[in-house]
Parts: sequence; C-alpha cells; structure tokens
Amino acid sequence: MALSNGNIVYIDQHVDREQNIFFMRLECEFISDSFSVESFKELFQNALVDKFDLKWRIYSANKKPKMALFVSKYDHCLYDILGRYNSGELNLEIPFIVSNHEDLKSIADNFKIPFHYIPIVKENKKEAELKQLELLETHQIDFVVLARYMQIVSHLLINKYPNKIINIHHSFLPAFVGAKPYHSAFKRGVKIIGATSHYITEELDAGPIIEQNVAHVSHSYSIKDLIAKGRDLEKIVLSNAIKLHANRKVMVFNNKTVIFS
Amino acid sequence: MALSNGNIVYIDQHVDREQNIFFMRLECEFISDSFSVESFKELFQNALVDKFDLKWRIYSANKKPKMALFVSKYDHCLYDILGRYNSGELNLEIPFIVSNHEDLKSIADNFKIPFHYIPIVKENKKEAELKQLELLETHQIDFVVLARYMQIVSHLLINKYPNKIINIHHSFLPAFVGAKPYHSAFKRGVKIIGATSHYITEELDAGPIIEQNVAHVSHSYSIKDLIAKGRDLEKIVLSNAIKLHANRKVMVFNNKTVIFS
Amino acid sequence: MALSNGNIVYIDQHVDREQNIFFMRLECEFISDSFSVESFKELFQNALVDKFDLKWRIYSANKKPKMALFVSKYDHCLYDILGRYNSGELNLEIPFIVSNHEDLKSIADNFKIPFHYIPIVKENKKEAELKQLELLETHQIDFVVLARYMQIVSHLLINKYPNKIINIHHSFLPAFVGAKPYHSAFKRGVKIIGATSHYITEELDAGPIIEQNVAHVSHSYSIKDLIAKGRDLEKIVLSNAIKLHANRKVMVFNNKTVIFS
Amino acid sequence: MALSNGNIVYIDQHVDREQNIFFMRLECEFISDSFSVESFKELFQNALVDKFDLKWRIYSANKKPKMALFVSKYDHCLYDILGRYNSGELNLEIPFIVSNHEDLKSIADNFKIPFHYIPIVKENKKEAELKQLELLETHQIDFVVLARYMQIVSHLLINKYPNKIINIHHSFLPAFVGAKPYHSAFKRGVKIIGATSHYITEELDAGPIIEQNVAHVSHSYSIKDLIAKGRDLEKIVLSNAIKLHANRKVMVFNNKTVIFS
Repeated sequence: MALSNGNIVYIDQHVDREQNIFFMRLECEFISDSFSVESFKELFQNALVDKFDLKWRIYSANKKPKMALFVSKYDHCLYDILGRYNSGELNLEIPFIVSNHEDLKSIADNFKIPFHYIPIVKENKKEAELKQLELLETHQIDFVVLARYMQIVSHLLINKYPNKIINIHHSFLPAFVGAKPYHSAFKRGVKIIGATSHYITEELDAGPIIEQNVAHVSHSYSIKDLIAKGRDLEKIVLSNAIKLHANRKVMVFNNKTVIFS
Repeated sequence: MALSNGNIVYIDQHVDREQNIFFMRLECEFISDSFSVESFKELFQNALVDKFDLKWRIYSANKKPKMALFVSKYDHCLYDILGRYNSGELNLEIPFIVSNHEDLKSIADNFKIPFHYIPIVKENKKEAELKQLELLETHQIDFVVLARYMQIVSHLLINKYPNKIINIHHSFLPAFVGAKPYHSAFKRGVKIIGATSHYITEELDAGPIIEQNVAHVSHSYSIKDLIAKGRDLEKIVLSNAIKLHANRKVMVFNNKTVIFS
Repeated sequence: MALSNGNIVYIDQHVDREQNIFFMRLECEFISDSFSVESFKELFQNALVDKFDLKWRIYSANKKPKMALFVSKYDHCLYDILGRYNSGELNLEIPFIVSNHEDLKSIADNFKIPFHYIPIVKENKKEAELKQLELLETHQIDFVVLARYMQIVSHLLINKYPNKIINIHHSFLPAFVGAKPYHSAFKRGVKIIGATSHYITEELDAGPIIEQNVAHVSHSYSIKDLIAKGRDLEKIVLSNAIKLHANRKVMVFNNKTVIFS
Repeated sequence: MALSNGNIVYIDQHVDREQNIFFMRLECEFISDSFSVESFKELFQNALVDKFDLKWRIYSANKKPKMALFVSKYDHCLYDILGRYNSGELNLEIPFIVSNHEDLKSIADNFKIPFHYIPIVKENKKEAELKQLELLETHQIDFVVLARYMQIVSHLLINKYPNKIINIHHSFLPAFVGAKPYHSAFKRGVKIIGATSHYITEELDAGPIIEQNVAHVSHSYSIKDLIAKGRDLEKIVLSNAIKLHANRKVMVFNNKTVIFS
C-alpha cells in the first residue's frame, strides 16, 4: 500500500494451525504532517479488510485506555495497581473505583481517585449493575478490572464488555474453580498454588486466560499461609494482565488468548 | 529411654493442627556392638507405642528398598530412572521391569534388568494383574513405580500396596484429571503446564500428592510442543518422588503427604 | 528445666556440619500469671547459656519490632511495603521514613508516616549519617530497610546495626555486584534476571543473603524491559525478607543465614 | 523475488536497537520439482545479500546436523542426551563420543555409539586436541557438545568451531565462573542455584549464553545436596540448548544470542 510515510516499529504474528487463523500485531509510526487516521482506516478497509475478510482494530498510542476498578474488601491488588499507576508504570487512566463495600474508600481517597459505593444484595443486584453500567458508559470506560471483587458479574455487563472485563482468580485454573480455592488446595494437599488472570465470560472462571503464575508450598502451610503466599501471586499476575491488555498485546479467539511480546 | 548407645542424626516434626496429629521423622545411629533391631523394636513398642497410640515404622538405612517399574511405550521416564540408577544416585534396587508392550525391552536389556512382558487386554486384565502380583511377591517388592504406564491399576494391586504405588500424571493435579491432559491444556489455553507424582488410590488421579512442578508455555505451543516440554517435567518430578519415597521421607495421612526434608 | 508452665508451639533446628554449630528456634507460650521474662532470662542464663556456651536472644511476640525505611527516588518497593503495612500484613511498626530526596514525601504523607529529608552530598556524608543515627536512636529502631536507597551506607551505621540493615540488590548476587546490574545483565545476555535481599556489611553487596528470586527474560528485552520486570522481583523479595526478619526467623552466622520456616 | 514456488512456514525477526542489527529466521517449503538449492543460493546472493550486506546461512531440514559428544566422568548429562537421542527426540546424529577417561565407555557401548578414549595430561594436551580435531573433521561434525567435559578447550578447537562448541556450566553465569561453583555457592550462602549452557570462547565461561535455569535451595543443603539438585538443572538446560542449536534457532552476535521460538 502506498498509504503512508511511515515505519513499522513492531510486527509479530501467530498462526493457529488447528483453526487455520492468522493473527498479526503491528505498530507503526506515521511521519507525514498530512496523516489522518480516518483516511488511513478507509484505505485499509478498502484495500485489505474486505478482500481478505480480516477482523481488525486500530489504536492510537497516545490515547490511554480508561480502566474502571471494581473492588470489595481485599486491598492487596488495589494497592499494587494504584502504586504502579502513581509511578507512571501503567499506560492507562483510572477514572474511578467501584465497590460494594466502603472498606477501601480511604485508599481511593489517598490516591485521589473517585470512589463509588454501590452496595449489592441479592434483591438489588440488577439495579446495582445498571448503576455500574451507567458509570462505565458515562466515563467511556474501555475495560474493567475486578481486583478481588467478590461478586459474580452478570451477562448485563459481560455482554457490553466482551473480553474487556479482567478477573483475578486465586488458583491455577482450571484447578479449583469457584469459591475458596485455597481451602480446596489445602484439602487436596497440592505442592503448588497459583493465580490466574482471565477475561470473564458467562461460565464461571472459564474465560480466556491472560496470565498465570505459581509458587511452591508444602505440607507445613496452613490455609492462612496459603492465602498470604497467594496474595503476592495474585497482585503480580493481575498487574501483568492489566499491562498486557492496556498495551493492546492480547487477542482473543475461541476462548483462548494470543499474547504478543 | 535408656535404650541405646546412639546418636540422633536427623529429627524433624510436623503438627497437623486441623487433624491434631503429630508427625515425626528421626534418624539415629546405634553404636553398640550388641545392638539388636528386634530388641529395640520390642522396647520401643512397650515403652512408647502402646502408651501414646503411635503408628510407627522402622527401616534400616543399609537395606535398600526394592522397586518394581511398570512401563508401557513411553521411554523418557524409564531412561531417566535407569540413568540415575546406574549412576548410584538412587538408593534402591530394581529387580525387574514389567510392561504390557514389548517396545521398551531393549532398554531394559541395555541396563541388564529383567523385563517381563505381560500383555493386557480387556478380557485378561484380572489374570494379568495376578501375574504382576505374583512377580511383586516373589521378589519381595517394597514399592511400585508406574513410569508412564498407560493402564489403570485395579484395587487388586492397590489394596496390597497401599501408598506404595507411585504414579506420574502429566498435569498439575487436580487440573486435567484422566486421559490426554495436554490436549485439555491446549484446549483451555493455559499459560502453565505441570506434572504431578502421587500415590494411586481407587479414585483416578486423586491420591496423595508427593511432588509437583510446572513450566510456562504460550499460545505458540502446539499440542506436540506441550507434550515435549511436559516430558522433562514428568521425568524430574517422578524421579524426585521416587527419591523421597525410597529415602523414607514421605508420610501419608488422610490422603495428604508430609514430606520431610 | 522446671522453669515454666508453658507450651512449645514451634521448634526447629539446623546443624551446620562444616562449622559444627547447632541452631535452634523455639516459640513458647507461658501460661502462668506469675511468669516474668526477667526471671526466665536469669534462669535460662544460669541453667543453660553459661554451661553450653550458647548465644541466644529472646523476643516477646506482642512487642512489634520498629523498622526505619530509607528511600531515594524509586517508589515501587516503598508502595509495596506501605500497602502491606496498612493492611496489617506486616508485624512491625514504621516510625519514620528517611530520604536523601524529597520526591517520595507525598507517598509518606498519604500513608501518614513522618518523612525526614536528609540530603546527602559527598561533603556532608558523615554529618548526614550522624543525623540518621540520631533518628534511629531516638525512635529506638530495631532494624533498617534500604528500599532502593541509592546510597552506600558507611561503617558508622553498619557497626551500630550489625545484621540489622536490610538491602535489596537488583541482581541475583553474587552476579552483578555494584551499580547498574540491569545494564550489565543486558550486556552479558543473560536469560534470567534476579533480585537479592541481604544484610549489608562493609564489603559492597557481599553480606548474608536472606532471600532471592529470579525471572526468565529473553533477547527481546531492552534494558528498560529488564528494569520493569525486575521491579516486581525487587519488591516481593524485599517484602519477604522484611517479614522473615520481623518475625525473627533469620539467624546469621559466618556471613550466611539460617532461615527458619 | 520470483525465485520459488514455495510457502513461508515460519518467520520471526528481532531488531537489536543498540547495535542497529536486524535478525530474521525464516522457514520455507519449496514445491517445484525443479527446485535446486544451488541456484536458489545464487539467486539469493545476487538479489539480496550483496545489496543489503546480509550475513546468511541456509540449511536443509532433512539433513540432520552431526554432533560430537565430549565427556569425562559425570554421566547424568550423557544419559539424558542419549535417552532423548534413542527416543528420536533429538533432530541430529551422534557419530561418536570422545572422552579423556574410560569410565563412561560402557554407556556408549549400551547405546551402540563409537567411543574414543583420548587421554589428556598437561604434556600431551595439544597432541590430544589434534586427535580430537581429526575425528571431528573426518566425521564432518557440525557442532560439539561438552557434556560435563572437565577440560578447558583451547583456541585450537574454538577457532575451528566458532559458536559451535556448547558447554554446560554448573552455575547461573556470570556468578561463579570457573571451577567448583557449587562449593562457592555454598560458601556464599545463595538461596538459588543455576546452570548455564553457552558457546565457549577463549575467555573462560564468558561465551554467548544459550539457556539458563535455576532452582531454589536453602541453608539446609550441603554441598552434596547442591550438586545433586544441580545435576537435574544441568541436564535439562544442556539438552534444551542442544535442541535449540540443532534446530538452528540460535543466532550469535556480539557475544549474545538471539533465540528464535
């Protein structure tokens, strides 16, 4: 294409030979003063997309994605994310934090991020999610991070943000799906515990996996010890997943991720 | 106890606070010429065991345990075990290898270990296991290792060798129980694969875990790549489990292991 | 000893066979109302210490150690420590933070911890350290943590706080001693980077190692990427070392540590 | 280029931004009956190489590289390599094994691989290396693997096989260069040990690193324990390096490697 005066600064690809799908991630710089994203999009669409039946997205590097944080009572992931955020390590904006409890409000205040308390009980779940949705839409949120948010998110949000709601689950999935995985790990007597960050889908803890990590444990670990060791896994795994997503390095296909370097 | 002229050369303990059970492993040297294991046992039984309702076992360090190897067609665990065996790294004897296929006979021959071919089909399973059992008993086997032995072992053997039949399963249990775990791992899109060595019990892949390890993988791994990477996990994990068992460092209680250092 | 109405709740030991030294760590609960630490100490000294030439220390579990934090400009370790501190994960008190720069004052303010700015230049180094020392003594500090404090600490402080000043070095020591280890790692083309927490001694980066961890990297990592990946290692390794020290699980002998579980 | 009726089945690249060098690895299938490697080479040379000042190599996938094994007395790496070789896991040929001791001859015999005993003492070193060289040349060896070969190899061989002699060093380089790294690791009290596979260069243990791995250890490890744990690292790291080299996935530039996936 004689589209551009530009340079390719990154290109990588992956072929899924089972599905016969080709994935490519490409970063380029356009130099020309007269460069317009809109006309580039049009040209690209006509020249390539229609012809080869591509699915594609284009992002501008100087527009940071907007991330909403959902939390409950655990603070370790929240501290880790906000510490990185303040240091400029995360290439994103956090317009607000949402919680179904007030416990972590003071942390949000310290970091000067608006905190919305939306309590959830069985009876008002739908109503609460509609409030969350309104916040997300008002702030033009790009993706949501559940930082040990102890609620199940319904299809109401999932359908609006497909592959855009990142969860951290405190086990090496698919082991120990559901509640209290450290208790299950203790009971099973595993020698390794893990944490998994994934996009949520309607099936619990079954969405596309972005990042996993593990740590060795022994018979001498109590449940409390497992939980403490697990916290360090959870926060690092979740922050890595956030960085990958915010830097547009994740593609999802058929409930699996391709993670570009 | 004024039992002995001896030294304690190792002592370690573990308290399971949930079950309120105390575990202890102790190594001692007896110096006296007149020391007799039999009289020690009697004294120990009378002085301590009856009084405190202990379960105990005593082993002589200079009597190597006898291990039987069961294999099918995969050779990587077999090579790893026999290489270590020949180097003197394993504190055990291998009186024979059993297989339901003839493929690995030449390896047994190279290492000069008797190889018993006992074919198994659906119809003769019980009969075949009785033959295996006879071999085990004739050779006074202490424990059995299933080195990627692709058959399900029945209660016939399990009951005779409780917590004495070691299996290697090619996943980080409890994820991917059963057949073809690498295929399941590929389908689920995990970022980590694992291997687990455990004692077999009647419930498939649910016995006490001795050792686990994992390796990082990515979307670029085909099933074949996962299998290749997994082989290295399997052999190291299984050999570690064998060493722990042969050195009497494993205690089993309530479907979990205590692993002494 | 008929010293006490008490229970041993933890006991572990280690024998250094090269040096022929015996290490023991023991936790006990005293139940008696009339129990006095002072009289216990006297009794213990007379009954055991003099007899066996022991070195010993006794700590009360309900007296939290006081830790001073020294920082410069990097904030990732500081955020990690303060987040854990606020959550109650750390069994210690932080009376103040010292820095030779003002950059991190706002973080100390957020967490409501006094911040002392003591600038250091070549000419005033001794004077500055005397100010630090005064702060440490005034607040009866038990140990010091250099959380990416970019200054070399002199014998003035080291001698007053032997094996009580914890540093985090951003390499797997003894590789890449000194400044700019990530640059050296890049230049050498290593496939693994690491972080090491150790007590400082007069020889640079050569003190007793408390904790180490590593991460895999590849040729595709720039120096900036190594630094980013290293930050997560540094903060986890340093926080683990702090927990081990604060929980009195580290013993030092002959420039090496014994780490109790 | 209208060179070929072919398909690109793999392509990956790396840009070294410091050195401003572009690396590419490309696999292609040629379909045409009339395809000739020789004419392709000529065409490629004229069309691209001269123009862009490329350094390039071309290999035929169906021609296995020939690897010579140099060993001394340790057998764990040898067993690991030969086990994989026999299973067909390694895409290479092993025409012979060379050793300065006779200890491992029986293993070579078992695996039916010619074994050349070339003793080395200070006085005959050059002569011995000339014999080795003759063997390498007679068998048209492509690369050499030092599988715990306890001799320093001189420039005589290095110059003939630049970046083609793979060593396994039993430490995470650049820590513990030289002899007895486990003893040094014990003395330094490290919490992690490692192994490094690298191409040898004239400077000891300073050549381009191909692969590294590590394992956690503790104060309770004796030197003997470190050595035992290290053996498993050494054999896996060396075998991985062999596979990478044999599959032509390693490029060397400026004493560093680019490892393609």
